[in-house]
Amino acid sequence: MTSLPQGFRAHVANVGIKDDTDDFVVIAADRPCVAAGLFTKSRFSGCSVIVSREAVANQRLQAMVVISKNANVATGTEGMANAREVTEAVARLVGAEANDILIASTGVIGRQYPMPALRAHLSSPSLPFDVVDAEATARAIMTTDTHPKVASATVGTSTIVGIAKGVGMIEPDMATLITLFFTDAALEPAVLEAMFRRVIDRTFNAVSIDTDTSTSDTAAIMASGVAGPVDTTEFEAGLYEVALALTLMVARDGEGATKLLTVTVNHARDGAQAKRVAKAIVNSPLVKTAVHGADPNWGRVAMAIGKCSDDHDIDAEKVTIRFGDQEVYPSRVNDAGLAALSHYMTGENVLIAVDLAIAEGTFTVYGCDLSDGYVRINADYTT
Amino acid sequence: MTSLPQGFRAHVANVGIKDDTDDFVVIAADRPCVAAGLFTKSRFSGCSVIVSREAVANQRLQAMVVISKNANVATGTEGMANAREVTEAVARLVGAEANDILIASTGVIGRQYPMPALRAHLSSPSLPFDVVDAEATARAIMTTDTHPKVASATVGTSTIVGIAKGVGMIEPDMATLITLFFTDAALEPAVLEAMFRRVIDRTFNAVSIDTDTSTSDTAAIMASGVAGPVDTTEFEAGLYEVALALTLMVARDGEGATKLLTVTVNHARDGAQAKRVAKAIVNSPLVKTAVHGADPNWGRVAMAIGKCSDDHDIDAEKVTIRFGDQEVYPSRVNDAGLAALSHYMTGENVLIAVDLAIAEGTFTVYGCDLSDGYVRINADYTT
Repeated sequence: MTSLPQGFRAHVANVGIKDDTDDFVVIAADRPCVAAGLFTKSRFSGCSVIVSREAVANQRLQAMVVISKNANVATGTEGMANAREVTEAVARLVGAEANDILIASTGVIGRQYPMPALRAHLSSPSLPFDVVDAEATARAIMTTDTHPKVASATVGTSTIVGIAKGVGMIEPDMATLITLFFTDAALEPAVLEAMFRRVIDRTFNAVSIDTDTSTSDTAAIMASGVAGPVDTTEFEAGLYEVALALTLMVARDGEGATKLLTVTVNHARDGAQAKRVAKAIVNSPLVKTAVHGADPNWGRVAMAIGKCSDDHDIDAEKVTIRFGDQEVYPSRVNDAGLAALSHYMTGENVLIAVDLAIAEGTFTVYGCDLSDGYVRINADYTT
Repeated sequence: MTSLPQGFRAHVANVGIKDDTDDFVVIAADRPCVAAGLFTKSRFSGCSVIVSREAVANQRLQAMVVISKNANVATGTEGMANAREVTEAVARLVGAEANDILIASTGVIGRQYPMPALRAHLSSPSLPFDVVDAEATARAIMTTDTHPKVASATVGTSTIVGIAKGVGMIEPDMATLITLFFTDAALEPAVLEAMFRRVIDRTFNAVSIDTDTSTSDTAAIMASGVAGPVDTTEFEAGLYEVALALTLMVARDGEGATKLLTVTVNHARDGAQAKRVAKAIVNSPLVKTAVHGADPNWGRVAMAIGKCSDDHDIDAEKVTIRFGDQEVYPSRVNDAGLAALSHYMTGENVLIAVDLAIAEGTFTVYGCDLSDGYVRINADYTT
């Protein structure tokens, strides 16, 4: 069992938002923590995102509440008032200020929270904060994920525990990503925020399931400080390790996914160009269907690179493409190589590596294949 | 039967590139024509695109040659030499200069033309230019299109005939689009080029099947002048009508498509913003699968609009979303409306209209639903 770090406890419950599975989670610290948060950039950001962005602006949080199966998006002023009512009630119950509560929601768009049920639950004089098992906590924020997602690392005397949900959908509506991190390390707010941004950029911001961006994506971290100071370089490495492990779980559990697709671009002009090219490849429906069909179709990878039409320094004559360890362009694969390659493509892990031969920029992104399962999950549903 | 305009004749043949269907077409004029061409912006542009871009730079063409089932992309210096050898041979056969020949190819990437077969065919002292039927010409440039695509219009004493192939795939490799227009109207080169650019921007550049961009996309027009001068405003309207008809045929015939999806964005800041938002919607896999499942899931449309995160003037509180004539956001649909809407969504034509309430920009794009058929066509193939 992975336990939450020192100083954190969780309350897990079913408040009847949709069915009888757990749909309400609060992870609380004994006192205010140093915190950082990153949110969707959507122009249709949900009420939870708006409230939480405000809450984390002062780099301090004492609790995070997650409501599942209702996104509270496109719900107007009533939705905003409901989000604030929930965070105020949770603040009262954990003995914190309302502005120290982060809220994250995921689920159907355009429907109000079932406030009578939420009010009934939150009107108790106290709630049991009896869960320290990270897996039980992760299970309670799941929607259509096929398994709970937990990862942890130890850095010096401190522990980092991360949980995530996604990228299964809810109802099926949207592949919302929520990922929350807890640590007992003591860190300066500015150091934690900068580090969190760097780590998320190379992990959760590098995962693509279907190019669609949720209105509710939320990533946040709380550091209780109970375990005292840590070496920040080591801590960042540990945080990266935890975030990457969760990212890979999310990509593998993508809607209808049967394979993890990793795309690395090396020797780009800079990291931004490497990321742009890698995303063009990992998001290409033609590349994703080829990977699903175990077809080492490098022509589609060339096509996807070619889509970066503003990158005038990309020269088709200098590009190298590999599937796994096997170069497929410009060198051509012989028959023996092709047999080995076809076998490689049937595995659960497919790596596509591109070298642009320009400069030192590098980036890796994570995604999955595109299957009939994806279409069926997303089409066989009527509002 | 739609005939090619005065002054044009076609040669159609099988040279055995892949099977026994026609794979080689030359449409030639009696003398050099005023011409314009637009090509893919891919960084992996094919040899045909490179040669043709040079040829049309002087706004003059005398013939267009289309080779099917081999893209001549990523074939290096040998591929470039082959493309030039073909255009030189065609020039000799039609009595034109090599630089007045446009070449377009579509098919497998990374394989050389079967030059012995092409040389054998092109070494005849003359080739029969015995086809004037536009449909027979359009059929000969098809790959996996389910039907030939022809449209025509009459403007004054002149005729405009357009043919197109796509967006079925070849082999399945790439949804290459080739669309060629012929007219006997007399037009100034600069006038024709500017007009052609405006028309293609609102038609073929507004179609999206799967966000993937071919290495070989080619649109070109030749004006023989035989019918004399025309009113240019009327001519542009006629050209737009022909190009739009072909665009809708292409979108409807998209890989695995069962529905034509039209997305119109009104009252945007400008046309560019309207196009950006419309493309975000028409390309969203979650919107496309919802349309496939006949689900009026406006939450996914809101999500797709929200993806335009740099458009800070888009205000979720001011946006209106319609499916067909029915507003679905912010007004909610009642039960009677929902029944009508569900019926509407089962039809072959689905319109999604968005009003951004900013200014006067407007744009319409055309696409299709995302079906299991798309995945099967693109995955069930091994190189």
